[in-house]
Amino acid sequence: MAEKLKIISLGGLNEIGKNLTVYEFGGDILVVDCGLGFPDDEMYGVDIVIPDFTYLVKNKNKVRAIVLTHGHEDHIGGMPYILKELNVPVYATPLTAGLVQLKLAEHGLLETSTINTLNPGESFKVGCFKVEFVHINHSIPGAVALAIKTPVGMIVHTGDYKIDTTPISGSMIDLARLGELGNRGVLALLQDSTNVERPGYSMSERKVGERFDELFRGCTSRILVTTFASNVHRIQQIINCAAKYGRRVAVTGRSMENIIKVATELGCMEIPKGVFMELNQIKGMPAEKIVIITTGSQGETMSALYRMAFSDHRQVEIKPGDKVIISASAIPGNEKGVSRVIDELFRRGAEVFYDKYSDLHVSGHAYQEELKMMMALTKPKFFIPLHGEYRHLMTHSKLALQMGIEPKNIVISDIGQVIELTGRSIKRNGSVPSGKVFVDGTGVGDVGAVVLRDRKHLAQDGMLVIIVNISSEDGSLVSGPDIITRGFIYVKESEDMMRELKDITIKALGGCAGSNITDFATMKSAVKSELSNYLYKKTKRNPMILPVITEI
Amino acid sequence: MAEKLKIISLGGLNEIGKNLTVYEFGGDILVVDCGLGFPDDEMYGVDIVIPDFTYLVKNKNKVRAIVLTHGHEDHIGGMPYILKELNVPVYATPLTAGLVQLKLAEHGLLETSTINTLNPGESFKVGCFKVEFVHINHSIPGAVALAIKTPVGMIVHTGDYKIDTTPISGSMIDLARLGELGNRGVLALLQDSTNVERPGYSMSERKVGERFDELFRGCTSRILVTTFASNVHRIQQIINCAAKYGRRVAVTGRSMENIIKVATELGCMEIPKGVFMELNQIKGMPAEKIVIITTGSQGETMSALYRMAFSDHRQVEIKPGDKVIISASAIPGNEKGVSRVIDELFRRGAEVFYDKYSDLHVSGHAYQEELKMMMALTKPKFFIPLHGEYRHLMTHSKLALQMGIEPKNIVISDIGQVIELTGRSIKRNGSVPSGKVFVDGTGVGDVGAVVLRDRKHLAQDGMLVIIVNISSEDGSLVSGPDIITRGFIYVKESEDMMRELKDITIKALGGCAGSNITDFATMKSAVKSELSNYLYKKTKRNPMILPVITEI
Repeated sequence: MAEKLKIISLGGLNEIGKNLTVYEFGGDILVVDCGLGFPDDEMYGVDIVIPDFTYLVKNKNKVRAIVLTHGHEDHIGGMPYILKELNVPVYATPLTAGLVQLKLAEHGLLETSTINTLNPGESFKVGCFKVEFVHINHSIPGAVALAIKTPVGMIVHTGDYKIDTTPISGSMIDLARLGELGNRGVLALLQDSTNVERPGYSMSERKVGERFDELFRGCTSRILVTTFASNVHRIQQIINCAAKYGRRVAVTGRSMENIIKVATELGCMEIPKGVFMELNQIKGMPAEKIVIITTGSQGETMSALYRMAFSDHRQVEIKPGDKVIISASAIPGNEKGVSRVIDELFRRGAEVFYDKYSDLHVSGHAYQEELKMMMALTKPKFFIPLHGEYRHLMTHSKLALQMGIEPKNIVISDIGQVIELTGRSIKRNGSVPSGKVFVDGTGVGDVGAVVLRDRKHLAQDGMLVIIVNISSEDGSLVSGPDIITRGFIYVKESEDMMRELKDITIKALGGCAGSNITDFATMKSAVKSELSNYLYKKTKRNPMILPVITEI
Repeated sequence: MAEKLKIISLGGLNEIGKNLTVYEFGGDILVVDCGLGFPDDEMYGVDIVIPDFTYLVKNKNKVRAIVLTHGHEDHIGGMPYILKELNVPVYATPLTAGLVQLKLAEHGLLETSTINTLNPGESFKVGCFKVEFVHINHSIPGAVALAIKTPVGMIVHTGDYKIDTTPISGSMIDLARLGELGNRGVLALLQDSTNVERPGYSMSERKVGERFDELFRGCTSRILVTTFASNVHRIQQIINCAAKYGRRVAVTGRSMENIIKVATELGCMEIPKGVFMELNQIKGMPAEKIVIITTGSQGETMSALYRMAFSDHRQVEIKPGDKVIISASAIPGNEKGVSRVIDELFRRGAEVFYDKYSDLHVSGHAYQEELKMMMALTKPKFFIPLHGEYRHLMTHSKLALQMGIEPKNIVISDIGQVIELTGRSIKRNGSVPSGKVFVDGTGVGDVGAVVLRDRKHLAQDGMLVIIVNISSEDGSLVSGPDIITRGFIYVKESEDMMRELKDITIKALGGCAGSNITDFATMKSAVKSELSNYLYKKTKRNPMILPVITEI
């Protein structure tokens, strides 16, 4: 029996973010992307979420390489964590490599890692795989689709992309090459589902530039613009617009400064001579000569824009008349943070441009017609939608059906699920360990379901510790009960309740003594249950109750 | 010196929700609306937010009445709480009154409260005020604007409204009456700012009905529709559509059942004979005969739709082929919850219609052109924007400027701020107590800043209790240290750390003893600081640390 190609996503299916797809044939594993995800509301205190790498660690000796499609966090954010487990070569375009190196430096991994850079059109071989970088358009330069030649056939893995006929730098997505691959025969297409719910075509990045031009033209006030730090094309357009209207540009916010530095060094950005200045140079400069590019498009409380709005920035404060342009849409979950900043900017008298319907932002992900064009060009036998919640994957499958792909050749997968591919068949076959690993502070994976459940409980109703010392001789009360509460109720206003809680505790312990119960677990559970009943009746709340009984 | 009219909002300015506006002249106070707000992300465990009533309680003897513009939660949700403090007559249209009565019944206040019902066009007098109900359009029937005749002049208080030339029941907003008021002279307009950011006109509610018709026509599967329970017109349209296509309708979800009952009794809804059925009647009925109207348009985990999707509903489970229509937009903060339900519906094979761009929902709040029309008709001398965050109020003021209202006659207020009005002048003059009062369980106001700060701390990093008993004679260790953690880390995987924590505690206490420190506060703070430093270094986390030291 011939060997089969296994395709396993460890992230990015039925979830947004932490994208990671494994291609395995015989003794060779190729990993595509290793991203992070952001915690949802229930993941109290979690900083970031990364894929569960167990399967890859177990098959360490098979992993030949990690190849990266582009430099967004949801595709590279897990790199420091995976490279701590697997020391394998990495392949990426120069900008992606530069952004990964920033991360590795922070984690002290720069010396021990090998990153090979390639340009679109180039390819490399690892194990039985030959991987070609195909140029595509996206909201970050250096983004590529992958044409992966495997022993069972050619796989096209799009990564995140869109079709932009008028991109800011470089050329349109290499549709010719994708068509050529299609003509030669593509076995399977794995495609980005992010915008599959949107009909039509995405707008060109150039549209935003036109809007910037309108806003800069004739403006006599200071202009501040915030956008995603990684959107190098957007930043290029702001700089071009500033140069056109005789303004100089200062940059604030660490991630923005880092990315501009890397992008400029690598030639992904062109800064006209004399346009950049240090932030402290704005002092005494006329308002109509100033542009400030800043982080904070998501309303993050530590960002430069937030600090400028709330008088917490060392060098700049928002002044009446400032024109502030928010060139981004709020990522779900960030709406309220963004709102808060906008309100504060208004309050300080700034003129704020933020409406998502007014061409201040375009998406970097293909809409329905673009997705269909990719299918039409590559003409895949098999189709696997990637990157999305279930509804995205499902809607994407329906689109594939419309494009004439046979129902039995379309597979909606899930993280950890193994898909087996031959030249003629596709099927699900079992699964491998997968899941969400939580990073909290320096801890990776030491926060799990129990810890989160407790944090949620504490967040909702706070807690109450009740401390009693009893005699080891006869079980009589030596000291206490003492009560500590946090996050439950103002204790000073509820002294009667505290007294009652103590009485209930003493009575519960008395009851245990009366029934000759002496084991601590039973005594604690009796106290807890009595206190809990009383408190729920009295307050309709369920604080976490921790009885501490010590034998003296 | 002539007396002045004071206008004070205790809610609804620089915030969304908990609307309450006070009109005061001499010895008379009229309260307009008393709503609730929903807690934001930082208000851990808070159920609802209500206005601070201190000012009204202090001036109890002056409060003549509470008048309600309509029956939405952000306008009536605080009623049970204010009526516990002030027993004053309430004025409302019949449906608003019916919805308030449901609330009062839950709080056992029905017997002691007086609600007077009036219809649009009617008026009442209290103290020096004469209040007329003016018919307007909104997403709930029985919504009115108020024309308040005061000793200084006529005030128009719009409440929430829109202009719907083709409303579902009743007539278009009474523009004629508003124009008549304008011709006679309106001193001040207080207007809803919710949709002031949207250009143009809002769509008619009837549009949604047309979309329902498309979705019902020729459909052979079961249809489930969810919307806001209070949107009686929307529910009427679903029922009409069901009747048209020979389907019967069952309702699930408590708030939906309650509102339909009240609305039907009051004649605000017309149910064609034989259309309604009990939910258990759907058993054995052909799919093409069934419509289920359900709560859950915001993805609430306790709602009927959520329970049907997650197999937790006693009578209905979502089946492949079911057509589910989500006729609502997600309120900011609810996006993820709504997403979760949609994904689960897809997973069960339902066909889900939810796109906000496809006429499945229209807003009940006036857009810019409608707001301008109200200003043009009423021609107010003074303008005060209500209901909105600062950016809404500011944008609304700019709109008023465009409409020719003089800059000095426009006031952006804040909660608690006193605005004084004569026939010729408007000015701010001081403030009264105002703020957010948190309701958690049965507690009103017993959760404040300190409790919330603690809940946040606990939510982020959990906590650690360290218990030590020392001898009252020489301060030596009698028992412990014992450690309890919750929401911090898996203790079993960190036994070394626990041992270290104990050592650090013993050392810190030893240090205290060595320096002859015997007061507990200092000892606790020494232990806490040593443990905290160690934990932050080791884990980059800051759990709440509670040292418990008992002298035996």
